[in-house]
Amino acid sequence: MTTPLRLGIAGLGTVGIGVVKIVRKKADLLQARTGRPVVITAVSARSRDKDRGVSLSDYAWENDPVALATRDDVDVFVELMGGHEGTAKAATEAALAAGKDVVTANKALLAIHGQALAEQAEANNCVIRYEAAVAGGIPVIKSLTEGLAGNQIKRVMGVMNGTCNYILTRMQDAGLPYDKVFAEADALGYLEADPNLDVGGIDAGHKLALLSAIAFGTKVDFDGVELEGIERISIEDIKLAEDLGFRIKLLGVAQLTGRGLEQRMSPCLVPADSPLGQLKGGTNMVVIEGDDVEQIVLRGPGAGEGPTASAVMGDICDIARGLRLPTFGIPAKVLVSAQAATSNSTAPYYVRVGLLDRPGALAKLALALGDAGVSVDRMRQGHHDGSEAPVLIVTHKTQRRDLDAALTALEATGVLAGEPVVLRIESV
Amino acid sequence: MTTPLRLGIAGLGTVGIGVVKIVRKKADLLQARTGRPVVITAVSARSRDKDRGVSLSDYAWENDPVALATRDDVDVFVELMGGHEGTAKAATEAALAAGKDVVTANKALLAIHGQALAEQAEANNCVIRYEAAVAGGIPVIKSLTEGLAGNQIKRVMGVMNGTCNYILTRMQDAGLPYDKVFAEADALGYLEADPNLDVGGIDAGHKLALLSAIAFGTKVDFDGVELEGIERISIEDIKLAEDLGFRIKLLGVAQLTGRGLEQRMSPCLVPADSPLGQLKGGTNMVVIEGDDVEQIVLRGPGAGEGPTASAVMGDICDIARGLRLPTFGIPAKVLVSAQAATSNSTAPYYVRVGLLDRPGALAKLALALGDAGVSVDRMRQGHHDGSEAPVLIVTHKTQRRDLDAALTALEATGVLAGEPVVLRIESV
Repeated sequence: MTTPLRLGIAGLGTVGIGVVKIVRKKADLLQARTGRPVVITAVSARSRDKDRGVSLSDYAWENDPVALATRDDVDVFVELMGGHEGTAKAATEAALAAGKDVVTANKALLAIHGQALAEQAEANNCVIRYEAAVAGGIPVIKSLTEGLAGNQIKRVMGVMNGTCNYILTRMQDAGLPYDKVFAEADALGYLEADPNLDVGGIDAGHKLALLSAIAFGTKVDFDGVELEGIERISIEDIKLAEDLGFRIKLLGVAQLTGRGLEQRMSPCLVPADSPLGQLKGGTNMVVIEGDDVEQIVLRGPGAGEGPTASAVMGDICDIARGLRLPTFGIPAKVLVSAQAATSNSTAPYYVRVGLLDRPGALAKLALALGDAGVSVDRMRQGHHDGSEAPVLIVTHKTQRRDLDAALTALEATGVLAGEPVVLRIESV
Repeated sequence: MTTPLRLGIAGLGTVGIGVVKIVRKKADLLQARTGRPVVITAVSARSRDKDRGVSLSDYAWENDPVALATRDDVDVFVELMGGHEGTAKAATEAALAAGKDVVTANKALLAIHGQALAEQAEANNCVIRYEAAVAGGIPVIKSLTEGLAGNQIKRVMGVMNGTCNYILTRMQDAGLPYDKVFAEADALGYLEADPNLDVGGIDAGHKLALLSAIAFGTKVDFDGVELEGIERISIEDIKLAEDLGFRIKLLGVAQLTGRGLEQRMSPCLVPADSPLGQLKGGTNMVVIEGDDVEQIVLRGPGAGEGPTASAVMGDICDIARGLRLPTFGIPAKVLVSAQAATSNSTAPYYVRVGLLDRPGALAKLALALGDAGVSVDRMRQGHHDGSEAPVLIVTHKTQRRDLDAALTALEATGVLAGEPVVLRIESV
């Protein structure tokens, strides 16, 4: 096939411009690898006049992404605008309706509307590709969907929000409190316009929902992801965890249990010397466990112009080469609705509570845990700091709900100085 | 496409039986993912009567792999015999001539005859897939060929022989000498029938040659790989490296320089806290650096029934799904002959020499280095042990040939107690 593959690119931010640069600069390489020219025919963005450091004069301009998506001279609609409603959704649907393939970096759109879009794509013989939506430059969608296709996937885990990992490692390395590092990250432009997308775990949760669907053949179910952000992690927690031989990571975990699909995105303790524990800064890591392959670990930059554009180009090259698969690896109609399972797998937990300086407070804590059937592996009380004493507990394996019951009972006794911090210790 | 994909499997050792088990056990999963049944129609191995723990009675038996490869009821010839001449080569050629696709785990065959086989495959509209030939269960061929197709690859590095990494980490962890750990590995069955394939770096060199071809669009050139084994690494070297903050790994490095394609497989020092430095036991790791993606690190089991069979199944699923690419990513006719470049990139080096107990010996060493233009970063002389004194040198960045010239000149002065150990310090 030597007919050109014609791209229409909507969204000319960092990633969009990164893609434009690659297509211009590496035309020969792309043609050699795909066997056909890869060209841009039209682009679209909010402002036409902005100087983006690269000439766009060779391309038709569309103010309306929907118009771009349906142009006769566009084969692939490259959606790099973001947002799960509004224009990105409308333009993607229009592209599929017009029989165009779609390449996108939009995790929110797919995490929320993935099933409907996948069905629409298949009804129109189109493909939707989204390698850039998960873990930046790491070819994790491809590894999971294709390379490990012979495996029954047991568990998928990942650190998939570089900003959160930056904040947590910076807190650790510099001994700085959360608020200070959050402000630094903000000043460096690392945070989304709505920071809760990052530090609340939502962005990473979108990514986990996409990986779950591929791994387990289930309909993408972002609502089934138990979300917990990193806002309550203190420098104290980070230091205590380090003393115990652990690091705190915003970790996504998806696994199919007897009771359904468990999807968690929450700060967890992982062994300091594990690949996940060693991960620093904005780097991402995904761990895939399969019945045959055992464990594969993929590590790479989770964001940035080059790495994200690299993932977009990988998808474009696949389309140019004629490599076509259903959105989530198997036909959308075959994906099953997963029963969302509230975490019921057992694990040891890290618990930090502040106890009011009252006689018998520690006994009440111990009693509450015992009554709920939570067995304590280690407990340590620190010096009273004013009116409260910090207590660190590491439990034996327990169910989260038993632990929560213990803490609720403890709360009722009136000895708690504040809300406890509860972090799962994940075996990795 | 719902016609079955019919496999003929030659070689029923660990990996072959692993593949048989997966095809039997996961028929539904494979059909769901590929859209068609994946079945075995015929098998071949040296001995028909051996008990392999799985029933083969459903499959036709061929004593001759060439006959198996050309059967009318075989679509994919799965070559798991190994060896780069003789039957494996003849059967692969016969399969391609008969229009069969080939899936193989045979790194030696492809490293030596890859160009001719790729040309034959393309002339017959067949594909050759070999994910299992490099780094076991890690989907590295796929990541490099497809996921990173938009990148100009800068460098590929890897620890790709689990046995060597086992030996080196076991020496380090247990403080045992090479000979003792080698004997252990032998007793555990970790070594190839010809151990030089492992410890001489040949097996890993084959793998590096395959990655180079894909990364740089060059004809696979195993003869161009500078090979050095781990046989001369002593426990002393491992300890000294650790003191300096490094670990010793049998590391493959391929990069295209201004003077040609540099391919090295040799023991190197890497930072102890880098992902490569942290790698223990039989696990493999491949690091890929591209102009856009920056650095991707892939880690996983390098051998074993499950992981290797997982890689074979990934290839089989791709073929079942109709995903077809040239053997090395671009058509064989387009691959260029690389100019093999003797290592000329500069690097710091670790040098350990034994100096005879003679006045002026250390001065002669210093002079020889200075005369050859090799600048010393650190030098340390240990206590005389009988008649010789161990000297450790860490050089500044230098060319290997200048260092070799210095050591040759030193040799001529008669102060050397034995052959120096020279290890490159690789920046990773």
